[in-house]
Amino acid sequence: MRTIDPTQIATKDLHQFILGAVGPRPIAFASTISADGVPNLAPYSFFNAFSSNPPILIFSSNRRVENNTTKDTLQNVKETGEVVIHAVSYAMARQMALCSIEYDASINEFEKAGFTPLPSERVRPFRVAESPVHMECVVDNILPLGEKGGAGNLIVCRMVLMHISEDVLTPSGRIDPHKIDLIGRLGRFYYARASGDAIFEVVQKVNELGVGFDALPYAARHSPVLTGNELARIAALTQLPSREEALADPAVVEAIQQCNNTAELHLLVRQALERGDVEQAAKLVVAGD
Amino acid sequence: MRTIDPTQIATKDLHQFILGAVGPRPIAFASTISADGVPNLAPYSFFNAFSSNPPILIFSSNRRVENNTTKDTLQNVKETGEVVIHAVSYAMARQMALCSIEYDASINEFEKAGFTPLPSERVRPFRVAESPVHMECVVDNILPLGEKGGAGNLIVCRMVLMHISEDVLTPSGRIDPHKIDLIGRLGRFYYARASGDAIFEVVQKVNELGVGFDALPYAARHSPVLTGNELARIAALTQLPSREEALADPAVVEAIQQCNNTAELHLLVRQALERGDVEQAAKLVVAGD
Repeated sequence: MRTIDPTQIATKDLHQFILGAVGPRPIAFASTISADGVPNLAPYSFFNAFSSNPPILIFSSNRRVENNTTKDTLQNVKETGEVVIHAVSYAMARQMALCSIEYDASINEFEKAGFTPLPSERVRPFRVAESPVHMECVVDNILPLGEKGGAGNLIVCRMVLMHISEDVLTPSGRIDPHKIDLIGRLGRFYYARASGDAIFEVVQKVNELGVGFDALPYAARHSPVLTGNELARIAALTQLPSREEALADPAVVEAIQQCNNTAELHLLVRQALERGDVEQAAKLVVAGD
Repeated sequence: MRTIDPTQIATKDLHQFILGAVGPRPIAFASTISADGVPNLAPYSFFNAFSSNPPILIFSSNRRVENNTTKDTLQNVKETGEVVIHAVSYAMARQMALCSIEYDASINEFEKAGFTPLPSERVRPFRVAESPVHMECVVDNILPLGEKGGAGNLIVCRMVLMHISEDVLTPSGRIDPHKIDLIGRLGRFYYARASGDAIFEVVQKVNELGVGFDALPYAARHSPVLTGNELARIAALTQLPSREEALADPAVVEAIQQCNNTAELHLLVRQALERGDVEQAAKLVVAGD
């Protein structure tokens, strides 16, 4: 591995390594307004939710790496203490990117980026009609993390009202990831679209104690075929079948007789997993040990 | 839109709306060690980078919504003040998910999840060999955001050493998003894989002042065909061609003559954009106004 000491590398290079390693990052598309009434829109990807009770969202408006200046959003939240944070769907990507341009503070990014302003209910900044989720927030705190170029300024936001488009909800009223079609930020000029085949499911109940890798037979843990993701599905079972239970299954006995080696047997384990039959996969693994 | 007042909804329901709206979230796969030496591994998706100088990563170990208890990771960082935060690639997904199971504090998740521990250089917790990026951190601060179930506890981490697998670097030494193959967290049991077709590029220099939507011709801004993403590529140009320049291009004149209406012309604009010829798209838009 390449080892990097943060004190021994230029900030701009460290910044890019962090951007490439910590991702995909959700985007806070932040609407603010200056004390004298100029609206501002800007995207921030040093952002996340951090608490649901109270509902806290935090984003950082960093001091610019190249010249240590600060951004209009930071000035506006210092002046007014309010912000609307929007979710960013794929359909908004390039209009949002226009709002990353450093227009003069007098410029209204709603007009530059072609977004439609909607009045908020609890705060002064406008909402972006095109976004599927609007979170009206008051700023509880602004915490500087340093004074040099590249230093973050944590903007700690308490959500006071949330608006969700009916278009992104399931019939039972939950947010459907395929419908909301979010994008996240990666390093450099890369983004990730959380949609279609990129979405996958891992159902893992936190209170179902999986047997773990350490309970898998030796041949499984050292499989020439099975991946960590495949073995983990078996390790997530709360109980493995006994050898007797496995060998009581005629299909398992037949599989053992047909296979010439562990690799062949583990290909059958893979097929069982692909069918979603984790119990059968477990029996094959146990019987083959 | 559906409007939600956070003070008028059960925390568990608000929590799910926040998880569905703020995403894809990067995952801090956190390795800690208790004062008496038991290693712990757990994934946290209330996480991001927030500063590059100093290099600050923050994740939240929340009080559980259902019973207001806290997690082993939080106890360990209080005891030892150290953590290694790992990037999570797709190949690690299900093994990582095993670490979200609430095993007793005496259980070593490296063994349960089948991960290989590596000694760190600057801190005591082990690194996860299977992860493409290891960030050794000291904990600068722990900031509670509340005392009820669902309240976050911000764990403010200062990175003291970063390790990046050579396998995820480009020949010029940058992190390649396709090679690192990160996953992010969405709501409920959904994850997003930032890889393959899910990765897209938006090149937008912050100091190139795009003309903006407000400079586009009326017919373009009200196009029956063109999407916001398509129009934004033209609005990102630093200058639009004049009508004279556009009509001096024989291909543009021919297009105007062939099209019966704005919709037909804008389909040609789309074709130009799909070819990557934004200048030609701009000429067609200007000439057709």
